[in-house]
Amino acid sequence: MNQLISKRSTFYYYRSILWFFLFSSLSVVANARSIDSLPSWNNGSTKSAIIQFVKNVTKKGGADFVPSAERIATFDNDGTLWCEQPMTVQLAFALDRVRAAAVEHPEWKTTEPFKSALAGDMMGVMASGDHGLVEMIMATHTGMTVEEFNQISKYWLALSKHPKFKRPYTELVYQPMLELMSYLRANGFKTYIVSGGGVEFMRPWTEKVYGVPPEQVIGSSIKTKYELIDGKPVLMRLPEIDFIDDKEGKPVGIQKFIGRRPIMAFGNSDGDLQMLQWTTANNAPHFGLLVHHTDAEREYAYDRDSDFGRLDKALDAAQKNGWTVVDMKKDWKRVFPFEKP
Amino acid sequence: MNQLISKRSTFYYYRSILWFFLFSSLSVVANARSIDSLPSWNNGSTKSAIIQFVKNVTKKGGADFVPSAERIATFDNDGTLWCEQPMTVQLAFALDRVRAAAVEHPEWKTTEPFKSALAGDMMGVMASGDHGLVEMIMATHTGMTVEEFNQISKYWLALSKHPKFKRPYTELVYQPMLELMSYLRANGFKTYIVSGGGVEFMRPWTEKVYGVPPEQVIGSSIKTKYELIDGKPVLMRLPEIDFIDDKEGKPVGIQKFIGRRPIMAFGNSDGDLQMLQWTTANNAPHFGLLVHHTDAEREYAYDRDSDFGRLDKALDAAQKNGWTVVDMKKDWKRVFPFEKP
Repeated sequence: MNQLISKRSTFYYYRSILWFFLFSSLSVVANARSIDSLPSWNNGSTKSAIIQFVKNVTKKGGADFVPSAERIATFDNDGTLWCEQPMTVQLAFALDRVRAAAVEHPEWKTTEPFKSALAGDMMGVMASGDHGLVEMIMATHTGMTVEEFNQISKYWLALSKHPKFKRPYTELVYQPMLELMSYLRANGFKTYIVSGGGVEFMRPWTEKVYGVPPEQVIGSSIKTKYELIDGKPVLMRLPEIDFIDDKEGKPVGIQKFIGRRPIMAFGNSDGDLQMLQWTTANNAPHFGLLVHHTDAEREYAYDRDSDFGRLDKALDAAQKNGWTVVDMKKDWKRVFPFEKP
Repeated sequence: MNQLISKRSTFYYYRSILWFFLFSSLSVVANARSIDSLPSWNNGSTKSAIIQFVKNVTKKGGADFVPSAERIATFDNDGTLWCEQPMTVQLAFALDRVRAAAVEHPEWKTTEPFKSALAGDMMGVMASGDHGLVEMIMATHTGMTVEEFNQISKYWLALSKHPKFKRPYTELVYQPMLELMSYLRANGFKTYIVSGGGVEFMRPWTEKVYGVPPEQVIGSSIKTKYELIDGKPVLMRLPEIDFIDDKEGKPVGIQKFIGRRPIMAFGNSDGDLQMLQWTTANNAPHFGLLVHHTDAEREYAYDRDSDFGRLDKALDAAQKNGWTVVDMKKDWKRVFPFEKP
């Protein structure tokens, strides 16, 4: 009898170890499923709509299944992933660059948009229109190599702070959107940034901040030229616009750089209207979402009359087409990562 | 004593099962290592150089280790991944498109380069220079949506055959290069095509043939315009060059689309010279390779005087800089997948 007990206990002992090895991986999966992947989103129709769509397109054999390779999600940057008020971060950068270079350009004291830029008069800069903005970008973003520009913009971002929040701009990213991007990637999506901002202004930090590598960043660009300087190859930034990745430019940029139509697109302004049209006209299952800034207390509240990130036509289109609209105040439990959960 | 034996045998039995589960994954790895990943490459200095470089950059803690995210490898297409003789495949496509559209263009009978194209006189077409080629591309590749163009080019490729090999062009890909791309991907590389050819001509088939998805194909492009036709968004192909991804354009395209410098680059002609310069001036470990077409029997033999894929300056640069040069006849056991191994 003793022998039998001994045999049995040995048997149960080893069987339990085997079960542990065989099923430990399964239990990890089960645990992951029970964790909320979007903890900074309040429960409600917005959060449910996102989760339901992702469940549908990832369910093998389901009517809405989309293979992983075709799960492309595109995100606008300014106002969708990080704060764009009281002005876009890149405009703040350009104004600082004008101030830094002013000593070499005495003529700027009397020429717009530089005169307004030096006076810190943003509305004066805006009054010179697209032409003035382009001129300011050309004067401050070109005439150096791509590597030099990346160093300058990285350095500026490391030292500059937002006027309201007194924190580096790269901390003013939206926690719910960070969670959303991670959640999509965990479900086999490839996440892209498709921004009107300059591509080389974003690339040095998007991987660290958003988990989006440089090759998945699409933006506006200026022309570059390949040159050998003392036998060393460089790419010089020329004072000439290459591509404007805004409005009608967004679907053009998506096709140019990705060559596939997204099945999910996320924006917050009229600059994203065409990207959402293009995405939600996909024959495959599709999902369009707009972030509506409704929270003057925790961030900003703006839409139809805003100078930056105007949301007017796109809001009408969202209502007409049934796109999901995030009510920031209602849908987001936290706005920024530095807020307590 | 019997009890002891019984206990021991139970113990050894379960221990062996445990060992099996614990080490089965390791033995898979060990098996994979003993398999030749480049079976169509003859042993010799070329094959060794490739393998040694990949070993160095993937060895954790090694002096030449490169993180997976930065393992970017760029491949020219025409003459590097598939056959470009007696003319590039896209030129054969354009000539066929001219013939198909000639009935609507009676003026082509007397206007170059169309007159030569209709007569099948390739040298006559070439004589009209870059300007003539661009004109032919504009007449045959534009005025339709991106989706329509993709359908047309896919259909043409499915039906057309190479004049010498009497096989579809997509079968005329180089088996050793297919193995090389798979080998690099298995070692954490991201493989890109960087071709002078039209990006939309390549994208519909590169994933199936090379394992390279559309978003990793960089090529020459024409401008497109976003339009709503009967409320349906389309991208129309305009008769205007957007970007020429050749020579000095290749490093420009690499930065524009990838935003990182490759550590490996593969080409076969002077059109790839700047891509190899740019790659091999990387501060990180780097590797440049040229395919030298030396096999008139199995494929073609050409270099300094060829109309397509001229290899002259780049061959001199390879010798000067110590880039690896593939001697097709000597280094490749098989050229095409359809040859017997």
